[in-house]
Amino acid sequence: MTTPAREPQQERSRTTRRRLIEAAVECLGDLGWSGTTVAVVAQRAGVSRGAAQHHFRTREDLVTAAVEYLSEVQVSLLRDYADTLPAGESRIEPVVDMLLNLYAGPMFRAALHLWVAASTDEALKSVLVPLEARVGREAHRLAVELLGVRESHPGVRELVQATLDLARGLGLANLLTDDTRRRRNIVRQWARVLGDALPEPGPMPARLAGAEATRQASP
Amino acid sequence: MTTPAREPQQERSRTTRRRLIEAAVECLGDLGWSGTTVAVVAQRAGVSRGAAQHHFRTREDLVTAAVEYLSEVQVSLLRDYADTLPAGESRIEPVVDMLLNLYAGPMFRAALHLWVAASTDEALKSVLVPLEARVGREAHRLAVELLGVRESHPGVRELVQATLDLARGLGLANLLTDDTRRRRNIVRQWARVLGDALPEPGPMPARLAGAEATRQASP
Repeated sequence: MTTPAREPQQERSRTTRRRLIEAAVECLGDLGWSGTTVAVVAQRAGVSRGAAQHHFRTREDLVTAAVEYLSEVQVSLLRDYADTLPAGESRIEPVVDMLLNLYAGPMFRAALHLWVAASTDEALKSVLVPLEARVGREAHRLAVELLGVRESHPGVRELVQATLDLARGLGLANLLTDDTRRRRNIVRQWARVLGDALPEPGPMPARLAGAEATRQASP
Repeated sequence: MTTPAREPQQERSRTTRRRLIEAAVECLGDLGWSGTTVAVVAQRAGVSRGAAQHHFRTREDLVTAAVEYLSEVQVSLLRDYADTLPAGESRIEPVVDMLLNLYAGPMFRAALHLWVAASTDEALKSVLVPLEARVGREAHRLAVELLGVRESHPGVRELVQATLDLARGLGLANLLTDDTRRRRNIVRQWARVLGDALPEPGPMPARLAGAEATRQASP
């Protein structure tokens, strides 16, 4: 008897949490860290302040959840897109294109507000630094996998890092003006240079290797 | 009779202006855009509010002057350092090192506060966008000159741009934690890759070509 009643409640609670997080991301992009309070976010999300504070006691809690959410969405988008890419050497340009466009959107804008605010706010900084390290490691791991390279090869680690640092620099260049055209040309050159500099790709990730094997087996 | 009296006054005025600009840069780094008002900066600089407003009517004026000052200091530091570098191929690693460390300091931190604030403040944005475009062009021109490459060669323009965007990404990575060691390894790899990817250097800049000629002429 309790289960059917509890499930919709849990579902409602998850929906509320999700709406708060999405409103927090929007709010960070529009108003910055100084304007992002639990009360303001609750109002944007159409959630009572009490309910919001049940989920997130402080704005640091809320913002931590928002950064985690952003990084999960990003990783999941990357994985979906990666599944549509060709295997083999022709893969490098679309993968570089994907990586260098990672930080060109509103999610990076929200994260940037937080980073900059954290540089003058110790409480926020102590929350963000370990979280950013974790998110950064995940982005790195994924880039290594998508590029199909082996980190044990000298120089590979640094070139993958440089690609992600470049992506963040390009995100910055896209903050105040639309930098799409210039970025497109940089993608093309970076892919060419990276393709020459990286050693032969290692074994494909299982899913892709499977797709490739299927393709080779067909007439 | 008027000249000797006017000169010290002009000198004093220049000093006051300079002190206000330096205090504005510090203030941006410590308090962000929201805390950087003409009144606060005047107090930090030990200048009366009236005198400060004689130089800078609004905080947009003050901050514009600060960005211009930052970029002039940066270009001048680069030029001084470039004069100490070797000529020829061994030049590439120190030049890349210099470029990728461009945005690792407090000046970039101040600029970052402004960029992020401008993304939610149209008045600041309208001042910063043309200024940033000008500063960006100057950094690019200088990087081309220091690397001793010709932009007419296909791909060179984009690789120089990518190097500066990478530098800004590395600046971001250095905002909350000390990223010096990781950056050093990236410098080494990027110098290697860029050295392979760039065409043979064009003619040296006049000053350097002169230094090189002198060195070759000596026993």
